[in-house]
Amino acid sequence: MLEQLKEEVFQANLELPERGLIKYTWGNVSAVDREKGLFVIKPSGVGYDDMQASDMVVCDFEGNVIEGDLNPSSDMPTHAVLYKEFPEIGAVVHTHSTWATIWAQAGLDVPAMGTTHADTFYGTVPCARFLTQAEIDRGYEEETGNAIVETFRERGIKPMEVPGVLLHGHGPFTWAKDAKGAVLNAVVLDEVCKTNLFARQLNVFAEELPQRILDKHYLRKHGENAYYGQKK
Amino acid sequence: MLEQLKEEVFQANLELPERGLIKYTWGNVSAVDREKGLFVIKPSGVGYDDMQASDMVVCDFEGNVIEGDLNPSSDMPTHAVLYKEFPEIGAVVHTHSTWATIWAQAGLDVPAMGTTHADTFYGTVPCARFLTQAEIDRGYEEETGNAIVETFRERGIKPMEVPGVLLHGHGPFTWAKDAKGAVLNAVVLDEVCKTNLFARQLNVFAEELPQRILDKHYLRKHGENAYYGQKK
Amino acid sequence: MLEQLKEEVFQANLELPERGLIKYTWGNVSAVDREKGLFVIKPSGVGYDDMQASDMVVCDFEGNVIEGDLNPSSDMPTHAVLYKEFPEIGAVVHTHSTWATIWAQAGLDVPAMGTTHADTFYGTVPCARFLTQAEIDRGYEEETGNAIVETFRERGIKPMEVPGVLLHGHGPFTWAKDAKGAVLNAVVLDEVCKTNLFARQLNVFAEELPQRILDKHYLRKHGENAYYGQKK
Amino acid sequence: MLEQLKEEVFQANLELPERGLIKYTWGNVSAVDREKGLFVIKPSGVGYDDMQASDMVVCDFEGNVIEGDLNPSSDMPTHAVLYKEFPEIGAVVHTHSTWATIWAQAGLDVPAMGTTHADTFYGTVPCARFLTQAEIDRGYEEETGNAIVETFRERGIKPMEVPGVLLHGHGPFTWAKDAKGAVLNAVVLDEVCKTNLFARQLNVFAEELPQRILDKHYLRKHGENAYYGQKK
Repeated sequence: MLEQLKEEVFQANLELPERGLIKYTWGNVSAVDREKGLFVIKPSGVGYDDMQASDMVVCDFEGNVIEGDLNPSSDMPTHAVLYKEFPEIGAVVHTHSTWATIWAQAGLDVPAMGTTHADTFYGTVPCARFLTQAEIDRGYEEETGNAIVETFRERGIKPMEVPGVLLHGHGPFTWAKDAKGAVLNAVVLDEVCKTNLFARQLNVFAEELPQRILDKHYLRKHGENAYYGQKK
Repeated sequence: MLEQLKEEVFQANLELPERGLIKYTWGNVSAVDREKGLFVIKPSGVGYDDMQASDMVVCDFEGNVIEGDLNPSSDMPTHAVLYKEFPEIGAVVHTHSTWATIWAQAGLDVPAMGTTHADTFYGTVPCARFLTQAEIDRGYEEETGNAIVETFRERGIKPMEVPGVLLHGHGPFTWAKDAKGAVLNAVVLDEVCKTNLFARQLNVFAEELPQRILDKHYLRKHGENAYYGQKK
Repeated sequence: MLEQLKEEVFQANLELPERGLIKYTWGNVSAVDREKGLFVIKPSGVGYDDMQASDMVVCDFEGNVIEGDLNPSSDMPTHAVLYKEFPEIGAVVHTHSTWATIWAQAGLDVPAMGTTHADTFYGTVPCARFLTQAEIDRGYEEETGNAIVETFRERGIKPMEVPGVLLHGHGPFTWAKDAKGAVLNAVVLDEVCKTNLFARQLNVFAEELPQRILDKHYLRKHGENAYYGQKK
Repeated sequence: MLEQLKEEVFQANLELPERGLIKYTWGNVSAVDREKGLFVIKPSGVGYDDMQASDMVVCDFEGNVIEGDLNPSSDMPTHAVLYKEFPEIGAVVHTHSTWATIWAQAGLDVPAMGTTHADTFYGTVPCARFLTQAEIDRGYEEETGNAIVETFRERGIKPMEVPGVLLHGHGPFTWAKDAKGAVLNAVVLDEVCKTNLFARQLNVFAEELPQRILDKHYLRKHGENAYYGQKK
């Protein structure tokens, strides 16, 4: 079932340590089959050396396990909410990557201070609030997904224009059309968290990128007038 | 004698440079056989390229060498005290890992500022005081162990809930049920020392993780209601 | 056509990730054949794993593609302007390397604070201004080249004495006689951006290198009295 | 001539990039044969990929080349002075390693703030002053050696107790009994420069290691009462 998607998700999980985003198993990738309404996710706490594509777990958007001998990632219900509420997204990545985690621990939104950011994120990457005790009691992982969705709705951010979020005190989630793209977005988010932190330290007056530069860089790579790459 | 434990300790020592925790031989791992009341530890100052599992040294809790042609790690008496006084622990790791050493040199406790911390350490990781001249004269390494034990007793910290400590001006010790786990805890401690430092620099008002999030993350991985991973 | 130059450009592009200057395809290298008035550049958005020397694109100084099935790097018109306006240069490198990008985001010139800088750059590396809306509308990449040229002309900086520049909010461009040299200059610029930032943090009174030391180091490696290396 | 020493020096030069101390050829190692009064040093500006042990250059303490087809490292006269003036030393390393260079650019002595420092350096590592114009004119590299010697004499520091120095605005020199040891000391100096910088940032009140801890750590590894390692 969903063998090709399992392979993609497996390979994308392996990319997390290869690209320096995680240590051990501190991350998870999932990807969705929109026609079937199912997604495939990494099993919980299994080392990458022991893991195979066939160990990936199939779940539905209500957070039920549909196929798989292993428990899915404990963050699975967060992924389920994101697939249900953000119908444009095809894959989700969660990591504890160092620099994005630093901004998450600081509880700050990540402003667009450079073109590395603008090439991928069309504006500020928001930081979602801490959950309340009632939300934790109701279901920590599912309510984490709801807090992400609330953050995007309240601020009027489109999930495919700003394909990532920080969770206060925790770390980043990113998403994209497919698993490779969601990993790329996790790499970009970590990198801009690093460059923004030190740019502000270097020059406390360092400002956000002017809107015209943000527009230019985002729109030369995304949307109908994009001219970056080999798309024809 | 204790061949399997020697192999585990040997492999865990090799993990220290592989995971970026140490350079050269600036670290040591030991693990205990509780039934026999003996532990196995790395020999002192031997390069990893030359070392074999059979070079591991067997010691008792009073710090006597029971078997081995090589001198044990000079920190061996610290390990001995920890095994004697913390009966729940199965392995000990000492490193000079960069970020934990930075906090040790700053002489500060490591507060729980993120869920990476909360997944492993149930609260603040303490920094033990400098030894007095009298303690150094009495036996530096053994008294280092006593200072760690004193720190945990005085503050009422349970060693298996907060499986690590900093030594002021020196570096970290971590422990766990087994050698692999103690290395993992050393990795986590170094990582949170890095993220906490920069999170505070990024936002001087960055606070500790709310107790409810600390509880949730620690308890979803530890204790009888844990649901992380594949335990059944 | 220009097969040897394509191979050099291809190899220099591969050097960017090997030397830690870029992730994914966030950079590009080109090199020029001055006799033919043509330069060779990396194709846009093609992964390094899939790329071959024969995929390099040949362009002229007006920014026209002369040969190649793939689109050239979207930054190609910037390279074209640099070749047209700086006749001494033989190759150009653009990256988003972390520390140079940090200075670019801070919008600051990079002062010569150490001999690593002085060995390669004979004085401050300038930061070029943001483009105006009118310039962006006219042609973002070409006008970026013009802004670089303006920066060097207005300040009276000789391009071969200071073979690099930062673009405010973006990242560095470097150049040299050949592609290997331009990559080297990108490595040096990134390194001095890192050391300068932390030197100032460590000592806010840290000053620029005295002119006499700058002269000595630059001139022992460059110009007719140079005595570094094996040149005879 | 001096074939074994050439091999040692060659291997130690290769260690510099392997241990992350240098990029390209930004460093050099030499080692001395005290009986013959000659030392062996890396050739100037030769890439590590192209270099062989037989390319090492033999020089005397007056800075004359005694054997070798290639020019010696341009820093050779500095090495010569150190061998002449510090008769206990057996090998010298010069690098532009990142964190030691940061302290050099800041123009600050490196205080002993941790036991990593105390295990190798018995007290503060000094920063030597900038050369005057007259000294540069007289011979930059030789006078650099003289400035190092002056620094140790004026402050009464013993070269084998504090086997390293920073040059203001430049980078570190370290030394030891042999080439491997001098590389180790370069690694230690770079590491403590990193930990000290961030320890001070984390806690501006972070102090130097108490003298009793400095004594204990230095003397358990060095001198007649040392008990670290396998020496018998």
